Amino acid sequence: MKIAVLGGDGFVGWPTSLHLSEQGHEIHILDNLSRRWIDTELGVQSLTPMDSIQERTRIWHQETGRRIHFHLIDLARDYEVLKSWLAENRPDAIVHFAEQRAAPYSMKSDRHKNYTVNNNVNATHNLLNAMVEIGLDAHLVHLGTMGVYGYSTVGAEIPEGYLPVGIETMSGETVSQEILYPSNPGSIYHMTKCLDQQLFQFYAKNDGVRITDLHQGIVWGTHTEQTRRHDQLVNRFDYDGDYGTVLNRFLIQAAIGYPLTVHGVGGQTRAFIHIQDSVRCIELALNNAPKKGDRVKIFNQMTETHRVRDLAELVARIAGGTVAYLPNPRKEAAENDLVVKNDQFRALGLNAITLEAGLLSEVMDVAKKYAYRVDRSRIPAVSAWTKDIAPTLEHDPEGRRLKSVS
Amino acid sequence: MKIAVLGGDGFVGWPTSLHLSEQGHEIHILDNLSRRWIDTELGVQSLTPMDSIQERTRIWHQETGRRIHFHLIDLARDYEVLKSWLAENRPDAIVHFAEQRAAPYSMKSDRHKNYTVNNNVNATHNLLNAMVEIGLDAHLVHLGTMGVYGYSTVGAEIPEGYLPVGIETMSGETVSQEILYPSNPGSIYHMTKCLDQQLFQFYAKNDGVRITDLHQGIVWGTHTEQTRRHDQLVNRFDYDGDYGTVLNRFLIQAAIGYPLTVHGVGGQTRAFIHIQDSVRCIELALNNAPKKGDRVKIFNQMTETHRVRDLAELVARIAGGTVAYLPNPRKEAAENDLVVKNDQFRALGLNAITLEAGLLSEVMDVAKKYAYRVDRSRIPAVSAWTKDIAPTLEHDPEGRRLKSVS
Ligand SMILES: NC(=O)c1ccc[n+]([C@@H]2O[C@H](COP(=O)([O-])OP(=O)(O)OC[C@H]3O[C@@H](n4cnc5c(N)ncnc54)[C@H](O)[C@@H]3O)[C@@H](O)[C@H]2O)c1
Ligand SMILES: NC(=O)c1ccc[n+]([C@@H]2O[C@H](COP(=O)([O-])OP(=O)(O)OC[C@H]3O[C@@H](n4cnc5c(N)ncnc54)[C@H](O)[C@@H]3O)[C@@H](O)[C@H]2O)c1
Repeated sequence: MKIAVLGGDGFVGWPTSLHLSEQGHEIHILDNLSRRWIDTELGVQSLTPMDSIQERTRIWHQETGRRIHFHLIDLARDYEVLKSWLAENRPDAIVHFAEQRAAPYSMKSDRHKNYTVNNNVNATHNLLNAMVEIGLDAHLVHLGTMGVYGYSTVGAEIPEGYLPVGIETMSGETVSQEILYPSNPGSIYHMTKCLDQQLFQFYAKNDGVRITDLHQGIVWGTHTEQTRRHDQLVNRFDYDGDYGTVLNRFLIQAAIGYPLTVHGVGGQTRAFIHIQDSVRCIELALNNAPKKGDRVKIFNQMTETHRVRDLAELVARIAGGTVAYLPNPRKEAAENDLVVKNDQFRALGLNAITLEAGLLSEVMDVAKKYAYRVDRSRIPAVSAWTKDIAPTLEHDPEGRRLKSVS
Repeated sequence: MKIAVLGGDGFVGWPTSLHLSEQGHEIHILDNLSRRWIDTELGVQSLTPMDSIQERTRIWHQETGRRIHFHLIDLARDYEVLKSWLAENRPDAIVHFAEQRAAPYSMKSDRHKNYTVNNNVNATHNLLNAMVEIGLDAHLVHLGTMGVYGYSTVGAEIPEGYLPVGIETMSGETVSQEILYPSNPGSIYHMTKCLDQQLFQFYAKNDGVRITDLHQGIVWGTHTEQTRRHDQLVNRFDYDGDYGTVLNRFLIQAAIGYPLTVHGVGGQTRAFIHIQDSVRCIELALNNAPKKGDRVKIFNQMTETHRVRDLAELVARIAGGTVAYLPNPRKEAAENDLVVKNDQFRALGLNAITLEAGLLSEVMDVAKKYAYRVDRSRIPAVSAWTKDIAPTLEHDPEGRRLKSVS
């Protein structure tokens, strides 16, 4: 297949591109490199030394003889360029990672809220709009998030996108219907993924666009089979307070002897998936496309759930270190349960890599190898969800006074 | 109260501004006049000769001694200007009409789809974002649409925004919960109102913004008590295929001896409200603000429902004329039922002006008075919902060949 990977320079997009290239697909990465610019804005960098996308694709070619093509396109701002590109290249499938994906970054300031809404809504809408305009019947696979469910379940299992409910009619009987799971996003970033869902529902219904939406858990790990093949194919590893995600942050914190930072009492239960499984799931989704006229296909792309404080204690036990309980920058419930269905990927043969699989130590090894690159001052989470919360975040776990960076 | 009326130069915004000014409120209209520009783009004009907003507010002052202030601001593009204006003026309440509101215009071309999504999402998000940023605890009253419900009800009454459903838990019992009514929009325009709803839910929950969302039916009529007072206070009257709405279109069609244009079999049931009731409802909503921390308050702002073909036959009977059944440019069910709750406004004392109230003939009088201004070639609806539908719309009911205007 000819596959366009939008956002293919990112943490999940890059190993996905390598994986699909290795399977023999013709891969075109479309990316505006905004994520690299945000590193510059925040004055942070990937723990792993990341080469330019041009250099990385050159190394991939040198190692494997395969070409990955790169196109510098801003999906949100360059509608006409995107449309022409799609019209000329007519990919069979499109994998869409190209969004601003950090909840803390999306809450940093009014400017960051606007940026996230604009970038994400326009990237997704421009893509759908262009596909319909040029009559491109490609399979669109989008990376959504478990966060659209909003971690609130009244004791029900989280289904894969659609929830069966009973509705009382005027004649007094109860009819059952499947509805898109009511969303309850916890940040501006998560909210944009809920907006995406509405866009998908509309374009699938009105125009028959074939869409798979992957509600993904928090991705951990760094290597996949392909990124391991050469130092310069290494994947991005974010550890800072905005882009670093919880498990990878614990691992780097343990590696450098920094307290493991738990926000609030750590009662949040979250869904996780290893990066290697994430790219496999995308492959499975690509091989199981919906038919024209089908409703949006939704998969929960996660393999296990954990309570944050349990994770912190697990890492502290394995790798050493202390756990620091800090004020929570987020506005969220202190404790939540989370039981998630992922039957569809399991039925398609996903054999999950779980935390017990020993890969924790591989990530620790990467963390230790590059520990000299860590800027400790960028570890604390400083983006507050509301103006009331901001003043509570003034000290970091090492007792230094923080300044707002927004 | 000091009230900002966003989109106060429009069809509903202008009479609302007059009505609230007459009640003694200090009114500030913020509008970018985009609607007048769209008239220019489409080469159409209001049936009624409309003065500039500056001239209309001058006449209002001359007639009543009251001032309505006008500020040329684009909510979607000028975030910083909007924020400064709000910070300096700190209104007690904000009525938000400022969106691209025609479903056919939103489906005209890829450019119009993008414009509608950008304009509407950014106008609403910029406003919420700015309110939070400057800590403005104003009551926000937004004009939404009955179209968010998507005219699909499985035989249940349409509640006011929130639907009680039963959800089965893991232990097998059914718990009941109230959820935001699952949306099912019929056009890009309607979809933007569903996106607005998600924005409102988030900002009410995260930041305690006090929001009332009015799910309005199709507004008919033209005069209110205030617009009647002077020829130059006359309201806008759209009759063209994009902005003209169904009942007002039938009335002008009858007035000029044009066939009454029903799309499909006319089995669509729609909700209606007279413009005078619409401005009264907004007043009632303003006087019944939610408290900080309340969920978004949702009212159904409509007074009666009718099937489109019944309406056409009613107008044909009263005013003479023939009914023409044309191909439907929209992708929608041929027939639908619609039973809508509006208990909240009725409890607040709304005494509805229904179609029987004799006002139909007042609108006919306006239509006849300005019939000489009608451009018959702009009456047909030419914006198709999909590329497949477009070729079916090639002839107008008078048998002329149409060209696409997009
Ligand atoms: N990382 C996770 O734990 C996780 C979890 C759930 C869902 N997801 C989703 O998966 C996707 C990829 O996540 P990631 O961690 O790889 O993020 P990332 O930030 O590393 O990668 C996103 C890529 O998209 C690009 N991009 C952003 N906006 C663009 C635009 N307008 N035009 C072109 N390119 C643009 C960026 O430059 C970047 O290379 C995201 O949509 C994210 O929401 C990620
Ligand atoms: N007219 C109806 O039948 C009807 C029915 C249901 C809901 N509504 C809703 O009521 C509201 C008002 O409808 P209307 O019929 O008066 O529409 P309208 O088009 O006559 O008025 C909208 C006004 O908003 C202004 N505007 C649009 N975008 C703006 C922006 N970015 N910045 C500043 N101003 C902007 C326009 O210039 C215009 O004056 C709309 O939100 C519409 O969706 C209308």
